[in-house]
Amino acid sequence: VPEIIERYFEDVEVADTFHSGPHAVTKEAMIAFAREYDPQPFHLDANAAAGSDFGELSASGWYTAAVAMRLFITGGLRFVGGAIGLGVDELRWPAAVHADDKLALTTEILEKRPSKSTPGRGIIRLRNTATKENGEVVLSFTANAMVQRRPTG
Amino acid sequence: VPEIIERYFEDVEVADTFHSGPHAVTKEAMIAFAREYDPQPFHLDANAAAGSDFGELSASGWYTAAVAMRLFITGGLRFVGGAIGLGVDELRWPAAVHADDKLALTTEILEKRPSKSTPGRGIIRLRNTATKENGEVVLSFTANAMVQRRPTG
Repeated sequence: VPEIIERYFEDVEVADTFHSGPHAVTKEAMIAFAREYDPQPFHLDANAAAGSDFGELSASGWYTAAVAMRLFITGGLRFVGGAIGLGVDELRWPAAVHADDKLALTTEILEKRPSKSTPGRGIIRLRNTATKENGEVVLSFTANAMVQRRPTG
Repeated sequence: VPEIIERYFEDVEVADTFHSGPHAVTKEAMIAFAREYDPQPFHLDANAAAGSDFGELSASGWYTAAVAMRLFITGGLRFVGGAIGLGVDELRWPAAVHADDKLALTTEILEKRPSKSTPGRGIIRLRNTATKENGEVVLSFTANAMVQRRPTG
């Protein structure tokens, strides 16, 4: 079992890349999420999905985003005290997610700067990309996250 | 009970605005979501949150996004056959969401155009804004969604 390193702002550099383990999407979890948060027929029922633009039962994009967040928090990049999302841009779903897909996340550091408004914090801009086992991208976005700076003195 | 109208692409115009009913956030639902998809201490435990930048137990931003999707799908703007999200930009969380907040969604149509790639479909660009009862904005984003055009002939 590799040791899990918790990082401060100072411990990541632009172009660093981190990977999560895989997460298997289950039909049950996809449907449970859709029932609660995105109750459209093509996310709930295989027959309805067959007659839709999806053609088969497909996950809500917000479910895929939630799984990506899980992979981000449990993956290879951990911050002391956690990471607080400030905003997300360019959120795209280039391919549908189906039951039994195994998703994994790659995180690339795009930029970093000290927070202007909050002492002891830094802002990291990153790109998250979720892929199926065959490498097909199912979700990507850029995000700004606030993380802790290493205490001095 | 007002009749629920299902619309085609042709039935919305730029600057049209739609509203959802309110949805009360429960501590149980916030924590259940966080446990599954965003297991950071400030989303899970009031004591941990008290010592964090949030200061009190706060919902995951992805939970707030999921609730906003629920309000979009169950609110005043419904499309025949549903709406398929193509992408989201400018997703922001300007204020934290707490247990017992009542959230509602406003949807404004920003642009519309026929799909170039898919016959019988149109692309609608919209802005979704989720607010607390006091009007404070907790989430906003723009999105492109694919919807059905009214059949002709």
